[in-house]
Amino acid sequence: MLRIGILTSGGDCQALNAAMRGVVKGIYSRCDDVEIYGFQEGYKGLIYSNFKMLTSRDFSGILTVGGTILGTSRQPFKLMRVPDENGLDKVEAMKHTYHKLNLNCLVILGGNGTHKTANLLREEGLNVITLPKTIDNDLWGTDMTFGFQSAVDIATDTIDKIHTTATSHNRVFIIEIMGHKVGWVALHAAIAGGADIVLLPEIPYDMDVIVDAINRRKESGKRFTIIAAAEGAVSKKDAKLSKKELKEKQAKRKYPSVAYELAEKVQKRTDQEVRIAVPGHTQRGGSPCPYDRVLSTRLGSAAAEAILDGNYGNMVAIKNDKIVLVPLAEVAGKLKYVDPHSDIIKEAKLTGISFGDK
Amino acid sequence: MLRIGILTSGGDCQALNAAMRGVVKGIYSRCDDVEIYGFQEGYKGLIYSNFKMLTSRDFSGILTVGGTILGTSRQPFKLMRVPDENGLDKVEAMKHTYHKLNLNCLVILGGNGTHKTANLLREEGLNVITLPKTIDNDLWGTDMTFGFQSAVDIATDTIDKIHTTATSHNRVFIIEIMGHKVGWVALHAAIAGGADIVLLPEIPYDMDVIVDAINRRKESGKRFTIIAAAEGAVSKKDAKLSKKELKEKQAKRKYPSVAYELAEKVQKRTDQEVRIAVPGHTQRGGSPCPYDRVLSTRLGSAAAEAILDGNYGNMVAIKNDKIVLVPLAEVAGKLKYVDPHSDIIKEAKLTGISFGDK
Amino acid sequence: MLRIGILTSGGDCQALNAAMRGVVKGIYSRCDDVEIYGFQEGYKGLIYSNFKMLTSRDFSGILTVGGTILGTSRQPFKLMRVPDENGLDKVEAMKHTYHKLNLNCLVILGGNGTHKTANLLREEGLNVITLPKTIDNDLWGTDMTFGFQSAVDIATDTIDKIHTTATSHNRVFIIEIMGHKVGWVALHAAIAGGADIVLLPEIPYDMDVIVDAINRRKESGKRFTIIAAAEGAVSKKDAKLSKKELKEKQAKRKYPSVAYELAEKVQKRTDQEVRIAVPGHTQRGGSPCPYDRVLSTRLGSAAAEAILDGNYGNMVAIKNDKIVLVPLAEVAGKLKYVDPHSDIIKEAKLTGISFGDK
Amino acid sequence: MLRIGILTSGGDCQALNAAMRGVVKGIYSRCDDVEIYGFQEGYKGLIYSNFKMLTSRDFSGILTVGGTILGTSRQPFKLMRVPDENGLDKVEAMKHTYHKLNLNCLVILGGNGTHKTANLLREEGLNVITLPKTIDNDLWGTDMTFGFQSAVDIATDTIDKIHTTATSHNRVFIIEIMGHKVGWVALHAAIAGGADIVLLPEIPYDMDVIVDAINRRKESGKRFTIIAAAEGAVSKKDAKLSKKELKEKQAKRKYPSVAYELAEKVQKRTDQEVRIAVPGHTQRGGSPCPYDRVLSTRLGSAAAEAILDGNYGNMVAIKNDKIVLVPLAEVAGKLKYVDPHSDIIKEAKLTGISFGDK
Repeated sequence: MLRIGILTSGGDCQALNAAMRGVVKGIYSRCDDVEIYGFQEGYKGLIYSNFKMLTSRDFSGILTVGGTILGTSRQPFKLMRVPDENGLDKVEAMKHTYHKLNLNCLVILGGNGTHKTANLLREEGLNVITLPKTIDNDLWGTDMTFGFQSAVDIATDTIDKIHTTATSHNRVFIIEIMGHKVGWVALHAAIAGGADIVLLPEIPYDMDVIVDAINRRKESGKRFTIIAAAEGAVSKKDAKLSKKELKEKQAKRKYPSVAYELAEKVQKRTDQEVRIAVPGHTQRGGSPCPYDRVLSTRLGSAAAEAILDGNYGNMVAIKNDKIVLVPLAEVAGKLKYVDPHSDIIKEAKLTGISFGDK
Repeated sequence: MLRIGILTSGGDCQALNAAMRGVVKGIYSRCDDVEIYGFQEGYKGLIYSNFKMLTSRDFSGILTVGGTILGTSRQPFKLMRVPDENGLDKVEAMKHTYHKLNLNCLVILGGNGTHKTANLLREEGLNVITLPKTIDNDLWGTDMTFGFQSAVDIATDTIDKIHTTATSHNRVFIIEIMGHKVGWVALHAAIAGGADIVLLPEIPYDMDVIVDAINRRKESGKRFTIIAAAEGAVSKKDAKLSKKELKEKQAKRKYPSVAYELAEKVQKRTDQEVRIAVPGHTQRGGSPCPYDRVLSTRLGSAAAEAILDGNYGNMVAIKNDKIVLVPLAEVAGKLKYVDPHSDIIKEAKLTGISFGDK
Repeated sequence: MLRIGILTSGGDCQALNAAMRGVVKGIYSRCDDVEIYGFQEGYKGLIYSNFKMLTSRDFSGILTVGGTILGTSRQPFKLMRVPDENGLDKVEAMKHTYHKLNLNCLVILGGNGTHKTANLLREEGLNVITLPKTIDNDLWGTDMTFGFQSAVDIATDTIDKIHTTATSHNRVFIIEIMGHKVGWVALHAAIAGGADIVLLPEIPYDMDVIVDAINRRKESGKRFTIIAAAEGAVSKKDAKLSKKELKEKQAKRKYPSVAYELAEKVQKRTDQEVRIAVPGHTQRGGSPCPYDRVLSTRLGSAAAEAILDGNYGNMVAIKNDKIVLVPLAEVAGKLKYVDPHSDIIKEAKLTGISFGDK
Repeated sequence: MLRIGILTSGGDCQALNAAMRGVVKGIYSRCDDVEIYGFQEGYKGLIYSNFKMLTSRDFSGILTVGGTILGTSRQPFKLMRVPDENGLDKVEAMKHTYHKLNLNCLVILGGNGTHKTANLLREEGLNVITLPKTIDNDLWGTDMTFGFQSAVDIATDTIDKIHTTATSHNRVFIIEIMGHKVGWVALHAAIAGGADIVLLPEIPYDMDVIVDAINRRKESGKRFTIIAAAEGAVSKKDAKLSKKELKEKQAKRKYPSVAYELAEKVQKRTDQEVRIAVPGHTQRGGSPCPYDRVLSTRLGSAAAEAILDGNYGNMVAIKNDKIVLVPLAEVAGKLKYVDPHSDIIKEAKLTGISFGDK
């Protein structure tokens, strides 16, 4: 008898269900004697022993369904060691649930924060297998996370739609794209959507450069400029602040998000009208794109193999189009940033996209 | 020899090109000896005699293309009679261009403001045929405007995508949908997307009712609430202000748009996190949906007939699925609002959608 | 206590679930004391008393889901009076189930054949309310059926995609569009997709006219021709055959469907390569488009009202954008064909679309 | 002064325009003194000196446009050395055009056949840079070709739509997916769409296995089976025939394509109705997906670099997410097949997909 616990943690994204389906189908194809415990709302379900018994039937027909059938929640890593309001030690509570249910393994789908906790549970002696889920593609140790391409598709669709209306009017459009710490979605959507300017957290911008790019477009007869700005886009000046100083500054700003702040600056320094689009959580929503379904199914299937082979303590990852196992200890706590000197940035610049940096 | 001028005015929308293609194809199918003058950027092109000679070739392949190949601009009606910065009388300038080019007719595609000016030109003796373009569907005299269904499709897609992510988290989502004065897009997208609450300019909301609806959903085990708010959504209190007082109040508010204002109120009065999506101008963008392509092609084709038959001074409209001509004098200056007591509102309420009004 | 039976019959289409959701939400909003019996696979479930008890929960979240949660089957009207293989009288069996469950009303969603049976059940004394479901839009008594616009969207998307590849090569493309008896989907998709030739069951074609249209396009420098052919497209010669003769002829033909037959004829008589696309049942699949969701929700909501008011024996229909009740006796057995002399055909011809008729 | 010739050859696909835009933008960003000759309809334009002078303006706004602005044609490699009907030696004619225009380099976008000819031109002393275009992803030397992911998206969408209608009826659906020689599109679409059975040219099928899989699904209560069949799907028996024998056999078969042949076999050996969808050339059509736009832009940009650096005689490829140059001599004439023993096949089988092979 194999007893598997499974949970999804952190911000949701596309293909979570597809990945879980892959895991469960993969296990059932080699082993019938299995019990699956689905923990509700991420680590919370594990802490408070809130779960449902699931069968293969529950995972049928969810390949294309967005969201997660288990629910999810954010459970900050730094609070994991802090007892809850009733004095319950959360880490001990999770271990208790695990052992009480006599689990052979925990399957955890999540992003960066989730992996830190997963590694902690591994250090505490639990058998853990993780899958790299996040639209941000910022997980170290894998070439690609599922959710990313779906988010790129949606962000690109936003830029595409803005493009047709932009050509009709004389305007600057700012599209705010998800990504507080990393700019992968903004970068790919900007190339795919043919944005004129893209602002990433990893490449601080200079307002003069942006204004200059807008004006040069106008002079060359182009009626509009499209700016794709990651949520974490930051000016060169602000990039010099400490993390704490920056947070304080942002907390004080009058605008709810970076797009509105940029809009005011652009409006002041050019004579063009500015319009804003904030697709927000739509970037996490909807059916996963085929690319993500293939990736998540492959990862899920390989996770099943790792479980059946007892290869615990690993994240299932993709490298050079091969599914591989990467030790959690190597992954936890590391972010994969866009390298400002990478080929893709160079290639994007060659096709005329400005990163606002010079 | 037939000489036709054509222009698109006001905010752009989907199917402008499709409609113009319909007009031009319709004319050429009955008459070869025709010259077409495309005025650039709306009435501006007519005022300043800025135009391109176009042939049927220019209108080939644009059925599916968003935006307008002529460009457009907003030219407020109340400034039409006011001379420009060089003292040029704009109405006289338009008449001058018309007569100088020896036009037989002006084809004007636009919304409410555009129709006021079109009627003015008619009163000044010009031959005018108009087509009802606007995502807002607020033009009096036609059952439907083109652009509307395309905008509904996009707004609905936003709600759909938010839905999948909403089910994974415990949150209130506010989606801001275009419509400052009328709520047609918000109404249809809310029904189509299964929003829980929809706020229209025509039905002032009561914050207590909204909070109550959110809480009742939570108590019944639903983890999330989706609010579709038209840009012009207004509280019962604010609805009592004069137009001028309301404008002043809105100018002073700290939030860039209604979604952010509502978010703060909801966050204060419930214990749920709130997230915002502002699709903005994406609702005007992209390829027209098939419904709009059929509608605009039919309207364009009928406009061609009206021109060839000399039936000037009319808007080409659709009523009970028939294309009809409606005198411009009847149309100009009238808005078609959502009637709070109409069947569709009643039907929507029966399926459980709250309008925040009681 | 209200006891409602509900079933979906005939070929499935988009928005069946949305319509049922509308009915059930509408009933629950006015009446809590209700039992809902969902019959499986259409009339079959009623005949063999195969049903599930359903609650409002079962209808939650299905607004956007294609297909039907009840399953469906074709049950030809002419066999309804014929006992089944065990000698069971089907009509009596349906009445038996109805009375055994003590139903107040049967809600039946279906197309033309379904309505004939529904009317029969009404004549037999059952309380019946029907909803007009079919992608074909061929139901008499309603301006529009749900499923239609979704099918048009998909067929149009096929034409759109073919268009981009067609412009790159020198070819004739034939796209087979659903519609054996009526051509509504083909007509609307052809206009929306900008097809060059459209062939409808209602307008028999002349091969000479088609060949001529293809050659004229080539001579004018257009590299390709797109033909949208309804499944029931018929030549002028074949249109003169009796129904029986035509069936016999079609049974003998070597090709599986009309597109392949047309392709051979075109290939023989022009020097262009021909390519075929048969989207087939994809036209019935996927999430309903927003238009259909609004329509089906409105119809469902109004059906609930009719039930609660005891207005049985009617089809819920839309006429001039109002939801109305139409007596089943008036609807049953009548088809709504495309009128070859209608305005929309005339308008389409004016924009250059050939119907292959002259 | 740099003189560049550019052409697209073979079956068209998505992102051809995007790739050409990348090349041209990349060149202009480093070099203003450039002349671009666009040859019409593939090698034909080079042979018959049929070209247009193009500027950067011609490549603006085509990132999202399907097809190719240059047109394309199939020009079989084996006929390249055969003089045309006027006795013109085609290879010499191409060289003549090249030298007459004093070109520095030819940029050639195409698939397998195209690369054979490109390599031939290289051997004849012309400077050639190629880009790997094909929906089939069967080009040796690159991990990925552009067009592939877009085709997978469309094929998957077909399966998705069939899925919703399949669940409503008791049927087997066969979807014919492009791929005569290789099964990459079918494989990825089948995984992404959750097909039950997938048939690839590389893995001959056994009808008994297919029938068995259908029956087992039925016994387990699943009402339907979805088969994704590549155009080149082949039975174990037929796979043993020589290429010539197989061609002769296929020429004689009564069905226009593999889907219809399979349908007859399935219908005979199960009691389920069978339905067919043949998306055909839609799989080559429409706007390229964001993945393909990024890939083709990167490849185009890198091709520009190769040209400016004089690195001729290479195909621009992607390997392990890096853009690299691969000598044409290594690429020409080799196909990249799906390896029946690869990880992705194993992973797919683990999730329950049958390949009909045992």
